[in-house]
Amino acid sequence: MAQKPSIPSGTRDFGPVIMGKRKFILQTIEEVYRQFGFVPLETPAMEYLSVLTGKYGDEGDQLIFKILNSGDFLSKRAQSDWENYKKLTPLIAEKALRYDLTVPFARFVVMNRNDIYLPFKRYQIQPVWRGDRPQRGRYREFYQCDADIIGTDSLLCEAEISAMISLVFEKLGLRDYEIKINNRKILTGIAEASGCGGKENDLCVAIDKLDKIGKIKVLEELRQKGFSDSALDAIDPIFSFEGSNEEKLTFLKNFLRNSPTGNKGVEETEVILAMASKISPNPEKISVDIRLARGLNYYTGAIFEVEVLGVGIGSIAGGGRYDNLTGTFGMPGLSGIGISFGIDRIFDVMEELSLFPPETMISTTALICTLDEKSFESALVLLTKLRSAGINTEMYPETTKLKKQLNYANSKNIPFVIMIGSNELQSNQYTLKDMLSGEQETISEESLIRKLKS
Amino acid sequence: MAQKPSIPSGTRDFGPVIMGKRKFILQTIEEVYRQFGFVPLETPAMEYLSVLTGKYGDEGDQLIFKILNSGDFLSKRAQSDWENYKKLTPLIAEKALRYDLTVPFARFVVMNRNDIYLPFKRYQIQPVWRGDRPQRGRYREFYQCDADIIGTDSLLCEAEISAMISLVFEKLGLRDYEIKINNRKILTGIAEASGCGGKENDLCVAIDKLDKIGKIKVLEELRQKGFSDSALDAIDPIFSFEGSNEEKLTFLKNFLRNSPTGNKGVEETEVILAMASKISPNPEKISVDIRLARGLNYYTGAIFEVEVLGVGIGSIAGGGRYDNLTGTFGMPGLSGIGISFGIDRIFDVMEELSLFPPETMISTTALICTLDEKSFESALVLLTKLRSAGINTEMYPETTKLKKQLNYANSKNIPFVIMIGSNELQSNQYTLKDMLSGEQETISEESLIRKLKS
Repeated sequence: MAQKPSIPSGTRDFGPVIMGKRKFILQTIEEVYRQFGFVPLETPAMEYLSVLTGKYGDEGDQLIFKILNSGDFLSKRAQSDWENYKKLTPLIAEKALRYDLTVPFARFVVMNRNDIYLPFKRYQIQPVWRGDRPQRGRYREFYQCDADIIGTDSLLCEAEISAMISLVFEKLGLRDYEIKINNRKILTGIAEASGCGGKENDLCVAIDKLDKIGKIKVLEELRQKGFSDSALDAIDPIFSFEGSNEEKLTFLKNFLRNSPTGNKGVEETEVILAMASKISPNPEKISVDIRLARGLNYYTGAIFEVEVLGVGIGSIAGGGRYDNLTGTFGMPGLSGIGISFGIDRIFDVMEELSLFPPETMISTTALICTLDEKSFESALVLLTKLRSAGINTEMYPETTKLKKQLNYANSKNIPFVIMIGSNELQSNQYTLKDMLSGEQETISEESLIRKLKS
Repeated sequence: MAQKPSIPSGTRDFGPVIMGKRKFILQTIEEVYRQFGFVPLETPAMEYLSVLTGKYGDEGDQLIFKILNSGDFLSKRAQSDWENYKKLTPLIAEKALRYDLTVPFARFVVMNRNDIYLPFKRYQIQPVWRGDRPQRGRYREFYQCDADIIGTDSLLCEAEISAMISLVFEKLGLRDYEIKINNRKILTGIAEASGCGGKENDLCVAIDKLDKIGKIKVLEELRQKGFSDSALDAIDPIFSFEGSNEEKLTFLKNFLRNSPTGNKGVEETEVILAMASKISPNPEKISVDIRLARGLNYYTGAIFEVEVLGVGIGSIAGGGRYDNLTGTFGMPGLSGIGISFGIDRIFDVMEELSLFPPETMISTTALICTLDEKSFESALVLLTKLRSAGINTEMYPETTKLKKQLNYANSKNIPFVIMIGSNELQSNQYTLKDMLSGEQETISEESLIRKLKS
């Protein structure tokens, strides 16, 4: 009996309709990346396990997909190797699937340090794999869509990133979004101002959960991490303060007056906002969010997150500045800033808001249908003429019932059907059917080409 | 000590310059696929091992990369499982990396049989993985670039495939190539005509090696497979016969006069050539090759292979008609025809013949350089104006030595540099440097935009 095939859980096939929409998103992002001078990079799906291990925390290490060594992977293994799967794994699986695009990028930079001219602006759009438990919106294979600038600490990069975000959403037709910006130096300053200097990572991790678990639990977590009651009193305004960007920055300047690092963060934010107002198509979308923390303790400066308003789907893009991309590979001190768009979430939002333009659905402009065998040859000639005129055209490959041919056109959302039979051959005219309106007209070849081209 | 990172053998990083060229090839092929009404499909990198096993022969099964099960893959294993790695593999690795795009396509078709409208024309451009020993031109990760039409046995499909091949090479600038065409039915007929009917697969496998091992060894192999001396005498003309397509077909008609299957193959070839002469931009590139066999015994009708003349790199595209794509998944009798372009070989040929257009190298049209801090703000304004005008522009993110900024432009092949300093601010004009000629001019904003847009 033949097997009934299926695909691994957490993975997806993308059929033509979904592909059209995904391509629309990816091409829009890529276009903006290129407009801003980013150049493409692709790295292999397989990396050495040793390159990936230790970069994503213990939990992350568990989620990396390992690839079994080729050939007899048992041959060099002793009985004692089999006692513990964690010990055994690197012995029988030296390769693994990439878990994100940042570590492979860092690895690439270190391997090509002599050929890369800094600052280096690269984008990378490729799938990554994570052995997470699949759930709605979380997959085991998904695309990441990153852009990074390394080798400069100019704040123009931060402003450019915010401009790129706005431009992408503008082009996608997403109008109602907010680019939240904060700065790790501000969070460091807040920890200092509360008398808990050095504990900024604990503060970030806790505040990052604010939306999910609420203020009371965040305070509880901070207390457990050693924040005193007076410290928590000191940072309390952080949880409630609202206002314009200017008001927030004024508040922070006062609040952080004794923290040079905190003040640096405020200054940086001011410079970024001022530059963004010059180069972003929608600078008013940028909103200072004192409570934005982002979990990764790898960020050191500005941090970003983008939220679509009125759609409870969480952040759809995020990033920030880091100071030590390549340190673990023996190349310290390389500063950079990155942004990553969450394609799957953007897809879901656009679907929910019906933002995909109808063009993403159309495969071919016209289908030629033959009504009898005699018309087949003339149809071939017309097919070639239309294609030469730059019109994406196909011809139904068999002379069969017209209904079947029209159904084919409908199944592919082909908007125009050209019919050729004995009448058409005799009159040297074609019958053109508009599949949307259902209207039919008799038309000369010249008019046909003109009409389909427009 | 930090580790010195590397990548697994047989895999590659594609930096910006290579990516520009690869994208040129892939986009050209994709454009042609779409022009002919093919729609995109993507399948997951990971398939169930059981879906892949048994589809590529014993040798192929060994080359499939298996993915270790997540979590404690040892927990349910008994001591006796460890005796043989081949027995153990499916017990600890239920998933594997796709080996080609055909089996995943067949799996997709079977899983979505109720939603697919036939004929179905899909293209798929994705990497595949094979544990082959890496060597020049052979990689463990490489892209395949397939198009298939399933659900019709119309010979128009064969003609369209030949037209697509010509159009792709036309657009790539490759002029000197040959599309070899043969038909499995002709090869069956030849086996029959030699009195060895039923042994057509042995015949194909042997003839497929003709270019590599020569006629004497092919005859030896056939003799071992049970072809008698008189049979070998009978097929001898096949090895030497040359002539025009017409002459070859006339010869075959006579040679195969007693084989209905063989004659069917000749007739099909005639129809395909006649249709191709209507729809292909270069029908004269198609050459009947009686000795073309293609190893896969999965083909049942027309077979194709494309060779670039004067470059000893072998076939750069190939395909053919098959009758039973989905049989192993319990859906028999689905006929189709496919074509696959070999991206890496096309890349090598184009590099050797210097066919990549210079545009594939250029990342950004213009770089703005600031000569002093005061110009930074005006530069930002100009940057935004140029981008709004649709000119891909970047700005060097720091005000630093001009030489450094110009080197950056050169490193990225940016053709134009715009310089802004106190002179420029005062005169309200910019200095534009053509990086190719080295020429410099003073230019108004309006003229600058006009020039860069053209």
